[in-house]
Amino acid sequence: MNFASDNWAGAHPLISQRLLEASTGFAAAYGASELDRQIEQRFNELFEREVAVYFVSTGTAANSLALAAVNRPGGVSFCHREAHMLEDECGAPEFFTHGARLAPVDGDHGKIDPQHLQAEIQRFPPDFVHAGQPMAVSITQATEIGTLYQLDEISAIAEVARKHNVPLHMDGARFANALVALDLTPAEMTWKRGVDIVSFGATKNGCWCAEALVFMDPKMGRDLPFIRKRAAQLFSKSRFIACQFEAYLQDDLWLQLARHANAMAGRLAAGISQSTQARLAWQPHANEVFAIMDKARSELLREQGAVFYPWNPPRANPNLLQPHEVLLRLVTSFATETPQVDRFIELLES
Amino acid sequence: MNFASDNWAGAHPLISQRLLEASTGFAAAYGASELDRQIEQRFNELFEREVAVYFVSTGTAANSLALAAVNRPGGVSFCHREAHMLEDECGAPEFFTHGARLAPVDGDHGKIDPQHLQAEIQRFPPDFVHAGQPMAVSITQATEIGTLYQLDEISAIAEVARKHNVPLHMDGARFANALVALDLTPAEMTWKRGVDIVSFGATKNGCWCAEALVFMDPKMGRDLPFIRKRAAQLFSKSRFIACQFEAYLQDDLWLQLARHANAMAGRLAAGISQSTQARLAWQPHANEVFAIMDKARSELLREQGAVFYPWNPPRANPNLLQPHEVLLRLVTSFATETPQVDRFIELLES
Amino acid sequence: MNFASDNWAGAHPLISQRLLEASTGFAAAYGASELDRQIEQRFNELFEREVAVYFVSTGTAANSLALAAVNRPGGVSFCHREAHMLEDECGAPEFFTHGARLAPVDGDHGKIDPQHLQAEIQRFPPDFVHAGQPMAVSITQATEIGTLYQLDEISAIAEVARKHNVPLHMDGARFANALVALDLTPAEMTWKRGVDIVSFGATKNGCWCAEALVFMDPKMGRDLPFIRKRAAQLFSKSRFIACQFEAYLQDDLWLQLARHANAMAGRLAAGISQSTQARLAWQPHANEVFAIMDKARSELLREQGAVFYPWNPPRANPNLLQPHEVLLRLVTSFATETPQVDRFIELLES
Amino acid sequence: MNFASDNWAGAHPLISQRLLEASTGFAAAYGASELDRQIEQRFNELFEREVAVYFVSTGTAANSLALAAVNRPGGVSFCHREAHMLEDECGAPEFFTHGARLAPVDGDHGKIDPQHLQAEIQRFPPDFVHAGQPMAVSITQATEIGTLYQLDEISAIAEVARKHNVPLHMDGARFANALVALDLTPAEMTWKRGVDIVSFGATKNGCWCAEALVFMDPKMGRDLPFIRKRAAQLFSKSRFIACQFEAYLQDDLWLQLARHANAMAGRLAAGISQSTQARLAWQPHANEVFAIMDKARSELLREQGAVFYPWNPPRANPNLLQPHEVLLRLVTSFATETPQVDRFIELLES
Repeated sequence: MNFASDNWAGAHPLISQRLLEASTGFAAAYGASELDRQIEQRFNELFEREVAVYFVSTGTAANSLALAAVNRPGGVSFCHREAHMLEDECGAPEFFTHGARLAPVDGDHGKIDPQHLQAEIQRFPPDFVHAGQPMAVSITQATEIGTLYQLDEISAIAEVARKHNVPLHMDGARFANALVALDLTPAEMTWKRGVDIVSFGATKNGCWCAEALVFMDPKMGRDLPFIRKRAAQLFSKSRFIACQFEAYLQDDLWLQLARHANAMAGRLAAGISQSTQARLAWQPHANEVFAIMDKARSELLREQGAVFYPWNPPRANPNLLQPHEVLLRLVTSFATETPQVDRFIELLES
Repeated sequence: MNFASDNWAGAHPLISQRLLEASTGFAAAYGASELDRQIEQRFNELFEREVAVYFVSTGTAANSLALAAVNRPGGVSFCHREAHMLEDECGAPEFFTHGARLAPVDGDHGKIDPQHLQAEIQRFPPDFVHAGQPMAVSITQATEIGTLYQLDEISAIAEVARKHNVPLHMDGARFANALVALDLTPAEMTWKRGVDIVSFGATKNGCWCAEALVFMDPKMGRDLPFIRKRAAQLFSKSRFIACQFEAYLQDDLWLQLARHANAMAGRLAAGISQSTQARLAWQPHANEVFAIMDKARSELLREQGAVFYPWNPPRANPNLLQPHEVLLRLVTSFATETPQVDRFIELLES
Repeated sequence: MNFASDNWAGAHPLISQRLLEASTGFAAAYGASELDRQIEQRFNELFEREVAVYFVSTGTAANSLALAAVNRPGGVSFCHREAHMLEDECGAPEFFTHGARLAPVDGDHGKIDPQHLQAEIQRFPPDFVHAGQPMAVSITQATEIGTLYQLDEISAIAEVARKHNVPLHMDGARFANALVALDLTPAEMTWKRGVDIVSFGATKNGCWCAEALVFMDPKMGRDLPFIRKRAAQLFSKSRFIACQFEAYLQDDLWLQLARHANAMAGRLAAGISQSTQARLAWQPHANEVFAIMDKARSELLREQGAVFYPWNPPRANPNLLQPHEVLLRLVTSFATETPQVDRFIELLES
Repeated sequence: MNFASDNWAGAHPLISQRLLEASTGFAAAYGASELDRQIEQRFNELFEREVAVYFVSTGTAANSLALAAVNRPGGVSFCHREAHMLEDECGAPEFFTHGARLAPVDGDHGKIDPQHLQAEIQRFPPDFVHAGQPMAVSITQATEIGTLYQLDEISAIAEVARKHNVPLHMDGARFANALVALDLTPAEMTWKRGVDIVSFGATKNGCWCAEALVFMDPKMGRDLPFIRKRAAQLFSKSRFIACQFEAYLQDDLWLQLARHANAMAGRLAAGISQSTQARLAWQPHANEVFAIMDKARSELLREQGAVFYPWNPPRANPNLLQPHEVLLRLVTSFATETPQVDRFIELLES
């Protein structure tokens, strides 16, 4: 009953198997191998346009280098107040941009509200040097709290970004989970709605070290080769990242794994919503379920082997919990098994 | 006949096999797993003292974060003029130290000359703010040109470093190759001779993504947890780096692989030294051989399938080559096979 | 009727006269002159302890280097949501700290609320690398909106800072104005209440380029000589900053100038509070008055020669204004003259 | 007999007088005053084209922000091995460029040799990410050792820079001294020969805090407003820098002061070249004289009141001195008086 995080899962056997097969033989280092080229080409197909793809090691690296690519002096990037890059990356985005700022934007359900975005971004009038200058907007899909931006919501945010002449980045650490939940193509969920840069995460969904930074307009990423190398993110044996993506994307494995993770979350949410002992904090849309229950109940579950993390209630929602209650985050993944879910629900009620 | 680089080799099957086995099950993320702990403990045994170990993704990351850990404003680190961190890391050490400088030091055979080091370091008198302040000395073992520091050479450099109160770092991208060539223990080659920090590389010698930054005095690395996270180098599925090290260190696999690579280099060097068509640029000590031959001959070898890179002659040695000659770097690895070496020598003479 | 800002004022004649007198003769450059030494000594007397003093060129430099001196990787500094360093320094504090973050803290009247501070700072548990680590608390005295921290309020904030083991910085761009308003000595308003670092501003109060960064414990500033030089803030002709301070501090000129500025603000506030056309947004305590009036009235004043800036209402106070109203900031200085004030009030009523 | 440095001199009375006159009255802050505008316009006339001008506080700031304006990830700037920015700015250029590197280039007489430049710059092939990428060339006029680039020498360097598509910067800390020595206009010495950016120094030549960063193509400096503010180099009372420039440039004061300084250096050099006790290390062209004499003689001079600094012999010239000799730098300025010079020569011979 491990719901701690999708990064507590291991790697999918098909991906590890592919790594094993790729072990022998020589190949050009530093991303210059035939396989690197092939997989980059694969991303063009995936996104239905010629994109620029850069493999990096972690989601934090992908997000940080995305901002570094569009960096401006005194730059300010706008993201949701509870965004991963703001809350959980130890200042990496600021570090890789030499001190550009992340400005929090409010919005319900973990999603930037376009009107709030508009209000925040216009606090930085062009040429008013004292405040700094807008440089990017970043959304997370699926969000940090397991919700999803609908297409028109992405469009609305993209419109604000475009109006202020800054690119729109999507932190896609759980890109696949969002994609299958919304039943969209990558193109539909990104550039067709105004997204310029995607942190395309595969680590949480079955790989163990495979993240790609994708620029819809290759020119926007033209400094990335130097930025990536200088950031210590250019792997000598880059082909092993490429081959993880190869297996991941082959025969829609990635979509299957995401569907499974989402289904497990759905099953978990269904159980909780019918529970007398817990309730859903909000409706989950991807592979994260947020549940509210008595602290005592949560301790009991933990003693019986359930693994999960507590979560800080959103700042906008200070009254979410009763004093004796706790908010739990329950994350499912490709590795979550139905009996685990059912056992958790069973224990919850017992 | 691939002698392009040891990072053109793949991964040793025992290591990939271990990755496959480790794929299933859940484990704490971000370096907090049981296995992470075990392997960190394994490094204590390896170095015969309590060290602090931090896994990172690339050698450039290890070197850069080593310097970041001992960073000072206006800091200057001293390394050999041909050092990898100076020549081939795209300014990553400067970036991760927010602009600290790498000062080149001369010395024969790719090794810092302690007297030159002394002369350079004393160009920075304490409290003379205009010049900046020394912050580290870094040596590479085995060096970028396949030579080795003998123990007394390390001691002599350590003495200069200590006199100026700066730590001594060892870039051990080819640590194992040096260790077996000198027939030493890790302790003997490092802290017993005054080395404070080691970039312990495993990627070139059979892993595909496993580098460890080792502080002999854990206090010296006390900021590393935050530095590493902020540098986007903390893997969520860190256990997969740990398990590469597990297989790497088990039953002395790492030493066997390094011995094999070195033996292949020795065989190659022996063939070249007896050749009428080429000569050794200098005596190799680890797994890199530098050969001088006619450009035409080198082209011929390439056409017949040999893979290798040309190399810039050391600055100190401008007359190394005749106009019609070229300097080649030939790197062997755990994956180099005897017939490849023999075939190369055979073709060389034909 | 110029109330645009105290930095629209020029320099006090006694200070410019002193600059003229100091023009001739040779003196050691880069802060090593006899006069530099004397003035540094003068600060010891001023603060009644041995402090470390560093002259810099701007208030932004002083604030930024204060944070740079206590920088930590992944560092987070806490300041009021409307603080100058957060709102008006174009990311300089982040830049000089290589990406450390400024975390906004709420509080009424432009002042950090210690309980809010406590709540924000404990969002960063020690050793939780994902969030980063607290590195400083900064208060502004007088605040950006012309209010003042009382001594017990400083103590309460200092207590939170000390509990979390971070230094307390005071942005004293209007240090003198606060000091005379509260009728305190520098020691009483700073280290006796737990302040560790002061940005001691003189530019707004009669100098034209004289800011001093003061460390109550010289050890805390021990890297400053290198930090300042690297920050391009070490003046070659540093003695001209020193001599501004000389004239500024001589015969309590600085206190007189501040008293005058405050008195002018008081007169202005008294007029406004009795006005039928405007009201005070809040009670002023130093040399800034914030007034609310009809937009039309404010335009009229502008046409009649009054100079001032509009001001964004505090975020915590969204209902401060009626739709037809505007919030104005009116700043007085050593150069403000009584007739200007009286004329403004007169026009306001006309 | 003070020959320590031109920054040991004070300020010219006409400049300080102008500062005094400018003390009264109100003016827009942060560079927006009428006077700021006028002086910026004055630079257009001076350079005979529409330039972009940014006032900053120190020469180090001007040089560092020049490079920051043309910064590239993994960037490498080329300057002479003995350049001020490399030897005496404590890593400020690296800091303000977030770690871009300064690559030393050799050349006689303190001047970059275009062939050496070509050799160094082509060590960075385009798209070879490992080495980084060229981003600027910087020359110093007059050089750090008092020599001058002739126009064709500037052209030759500009040609290399242009060929590699990087801008050419001129560190003009002693711009006026060079200009009058060569009898050129600013346009002739800069953009007509391919210079793109000038650090236009006035501090050493009679101001006390007045440096201007001048972009021949304003577009090249388009980020400078934000870069400067973020660098804490935007003065609130900027008009006081502007008014220093006003007095400096009025009635050719700056050229007169530079002519005087150069004449004093010429007189000093003439005396030394005829001396039996000292010799010129090389021929001076501006306001710095480098003399070689016995250490004992130099000590004697010092005891008799002469003030000067020893200087490290150029690396390229290790045999410049006999063991008992010392190299002295003697700097003249607008404040140097003929009797001082004559007295020095007299004492030298006595």
